[in-house]
Amino acid sequence: MKHEGRPVILITNDDGITAPGIRNLVDAVKDLGEVIVVAPDSPQSGMGHAITIGEPLRLHKSNVFDGIDSWECSGTPVDCVKLARDKILHRKPDLCLSGINHGANHSINIIYSGTMSAAMEAAIEGIPSVGFSLLDFSYDADFSIAGHVARTIAAQMLQTAMPAHTLLNVNIPKVYGEEFRGIRICRQAYAKWQEEFDHRVDPRGKDYYWMTGKFMNMDEREDTDVQALQNGFASVVPVKFDFTDERMKQNLQQQWAHITNH
Amino acid sequence: MKHEGRPVILITNDDGITAPGIRNLVDAVKDLGEVIVVAPDSPQSGMGHAITIGEPLRLHKSNVFDGIDSWECSGTPVDCVKLARDKILHRKPDLCLSGINHGANHSINIIYSGTMSAAMEAAIEGIPSVGFSLLDFSYDADFSIAGHVARTIAAQMLQTAMPAHTLLNVNIPKVYGEEFRGIRICRQAYAKWQEEFDHRVDPRGKDYYWMTGKFMNMDEREDTDVQALQNGFASVVPVKFDFTDERMKQNLQQQWAHITNH
Repeated sequence: MKHEGRPVILITNDDGITAPGIRNLVDAVKDLGEVIVVAPDSPQSGMGHAITIGEPLRLHKSNVFDGIDSWECSGTPVDCVKLARDKILHRKPDLCLSGINHGANHSINIIYSGTMSAAMEAAIEGIPSVGFSLLDFSYDADFSIAGHVARTIAAQMLQTAMPAHTLLNVNIPKVYGEEFRGIRICRQAYAKWQEEFDHRVDPRGKDYYWMTGKFMNMDEREDTDVQALQNGFASVVPVKFDFTDERMKQNLQQQWAHITNH
Repeated sequence: MKHEGRPVILITNDDGITAPGIRNLVDAVKDLGEVIVVAPDSPQSGMGHAITIGEPLRLHKSNVFDGIDSWECSGTPVDCVKLARDKILHRKPDLCLSGINHGANHSINIIYSGTMSAAMEAAIEGIPSVGFSLLDFSYDADFSIAGHVARTIAAQMLQTAMPAHTLLNVNIPKVYGEEFRGIRICRQAYAKWQEEFDHRVDPRGKDYYWMTGKFMNMDEREDTDVQALQNGFASVVPVKFDFTDERMKQNLQQQWAHITNH
């Protein structure tokens, strides 16, 4: 691998190394630095921040991308980031990009997202990191605006020294041409999934369920990612991995004084 | 199921319904309300906030606990919470308790934790929720102090009306008798896992890796969970599921004005 002073960009995803989303991400940023791809060998959606601890991990050289060093891994997106750093690069990359995910990871979806978990893992390691998601599930989605957004943000992050633990959750709306209104810095909306379990009975008479669900935005603030996306903007949410609720910490230190020992 | 005005307490875990940790949790709190258990039928550790979307879910009545309604589920801890609410209780429980996990979920471990993901799912749904973890991996660990802590906190939460989205990450040190110093409200420590992949070659000559790792606390602040645990306290970290980094949001709105559209 040659580095020659160019920034090293690690790319991963959770839809698997052959997904169109990661191909579009590689194409969008490959001239910004030395790109290396380490991605799951099969789709990992809905894996959250999973790591593989009970099974051995496999790592194979891949030829999916012309002229780009790439590897496929039997594990999760988080495994990919860990293996890339320790077993392939033997150093921290300058930037980690994850995606482009086929489907939304805005608002509360961040916590279920393999795309964002890979980016979060990198940020914990001190690698400025971004997860990209396009609000279009279809395999042949149009990634042109998403690629443009990814390139703009990656270039900006390489130009200005970002804090080591920078982690951005970027979502791109499903819009075309002039319907796209630009990029907006946002907060995570409070939303949830209203589950609707599809109850069925198998040929042996036993119950089973398919999980489906309806997305419900409960947040009417104007600066949320959901609002921005609804108005045709790509949303950028800066994310922390310190989940401490400072206000409740202070409240409980007072209210629970009788059951605590400080 | 009888409720009779008593609080309904949903209990789940990620080590599986037969783990000693969940049995100890049930025993510790069963007289505080109407307890119902919905837990995975097999261990789910390291699953992070995974949900099961590509496979059908199974749910079976279990007889693991005498006199306690219990169900085992083929899915993840998050699936258990979703199914319990929608298909078993048909209402929100008053409190959700997850654990007692066999092993630590303090500091950064929260993001890999199935125990905490179940609690987080409940809190998103508006159910006050706690995840409990004992810093002892062994199957026959002594849960007596952990059970005492769980009971104290659960009773306190039922006595005082907690905000609907309350989510607590509780870790109990591996100490005995008077070494236990009490309960302390803390913040999440910044720590990470230094990976050490154990590289091996299989009988066919192909490489594989086992993930191992060394825990490294990078945080010297005095009010962290890691500090409390090292000093013999049980740590209670109030957790948010809004991950927005407010300070960086404000910074980027200024610094990235040339590439954003507000």
